[in-house]
Amino acid sequence: MTDTIKLLKAHRSIRRYTDRPVDPELFNELLRAGQSAATSSFIQATTVIRVSDADIREQFVELSGSQKYIAQAAEFLVFCADLKRNQVRSGQAEEDFSWAEQLITATVDVALFAQNMVVAAESAGLGICYIGGIRNNPDRVSELLSLPKLVYPVFGLCLGYPDQNPGKKPRLPLEPICHQDKYAKTEQFAGEIDQYDEFVRDYYVARSNGKLEFTWSEQMKKQAATQSRPFMLDFLNKKGFINK
Amino acid sequence: MTDTIKLLKAHRSIRRYTDRPVDPELFNELLRAGQSAATSSFIQATTVIRVSDADIREQFVELSGSQKYIAQAAEFLVFCADLKRNQVRSGQAEEDFSWAEQLITATVDVALFAQNMVVAAESAGLGICYIGGIRNNPDRVSELLSLPKLVYPVFGLCLGYPDQNPGKKPRLPLEPICHQDKYAKTEQFAGEIDQYDEFVRDYYVARSNGKLEFTWSEQMKKQAATQSRPFMLDFLNKKGFINK
Repeated sequence: MTDTIKLLKAHRSIRRYTDRPVDPELFNELLRAGQSAATSSFIQATTVIRVSDADIREQFVELSGSQKYIAQAAEFLVFCADLKRNQVRSGQAEEDFSWAEQLITATVDVALFAQNMVVAAESAGLGICYIGGIRNNPDRVSELLSLPKLVYPVFGLCLGYPDQNPGKKPRLPLEPICHQDKYAKTEQFAGEIDQYDEFVRDYYVARSNGKLEFTWSEQMKKQAATQSRPFMLDFLNKKGFINK
Repeated sequence: MTDTIKLLKAHRSIRRYTDRPVDPELFNELLRAGQSAATSSFIQATTVIRVSDADIREQFVELSGSQKYIAQAAEFLVFCADLKRNQVRSGQAEEDFSWAEQLITATVDVALFAQNMVVAAESAGLGICYIGGIRNNPDRVSELLSLPKLVYPVFGLCLGYPDQNPGKKPRLPLEPICHQDKYAKTEQFAGEIDQYDEFVRDYYVARSNGKLEFTWSEQMKKQAATQSRPFMLDFLNKKGFINK
């Protein structure tokens, strides 16, 4: 196993940071590492908004569901899928960027960039936390950051030196995750996933001193029983995505 | 700069591989590294189909636009966004997974997993190439791999030991990529992007012995002038994604 694989396998989200800032040259190296990820047909559709303004940070804390580490972390970044830059530079019409396919390529571009940046950061001793909660209110995020049409906020990212050392969250076993030559039905892995469910329950019980007690499958049930940001399709359409 | 950052910055897509296979234990370590990436609300929505069957490989070569390295690489993987597993385990209805928001979270999950796996692979001396071309014909991919509703093929990935050493493709300068506190219009970076355009033109001229000669902006224009997989929205809807 390489040192890099060890690093990847040691990932945990960090939700408490020290006051130590990120060196500006290191920060630029992280961006360059992000940019070095593959990009679909060279579109380079990632724009990172670095939020330093304390007032804007506080608004992100609130709209993301009181995630206070957004204000506390040395850096808070908003990763945007940006087809506006390509539209401007191409001289083509906005409608030429409204295909569902382009939402996929742009979103994947952003995620590959961000994950490279995360790995680079962790290799330098930083901790990170992705903030999907910024999609609780994408209209407000767009307003706060002046995002034009063809730019949408995919997720936030906290970066800073860790001030905690949480345990690693257990993942599904490999059998249900990697299939051979064709898709294998979930029911085939009932035994493995049942066992994993028990493992997850034990993990939560231990972590919460008995206050939390649920399996992975129970969590998935609870989530699915709630509407999943039902405003998202309208928002994306308004921003010029997936209109066709 | 850490060794891992050096590794990330050295990434190039590899399109020719030696015959050397990937050790099974290393392959499993790559999967575990992939799984260790962050996952939105613990959904773990990635399923990897490992395609070993030579006939299926050949069909992927053809449908992806004659990318012969798909047949040649030691491993060819199809990364799927999989909400079916969660639906089965949750006992909820398929419609509970049809929100646009869930397309985003599942797609991001897959990309973070894949990029971790790519970094792990490169750290072990392997080369990789993402294959977005599998989305040329998502219906046929679905049939070939028996993908059910709530599972869609996001991209393919070739993995193997490199038998070539291509140059690094130049990326946009940092100024237009990372903005401070609010989105900055592309026009503000006209000078930087014009300069980059010339750089990209020189890169292509050098790489192709003068046969290719275009800037980044020209490439973006050419792409935007072509319909971008116009069948994708219908396909996704049929698969149970973004119905609402």
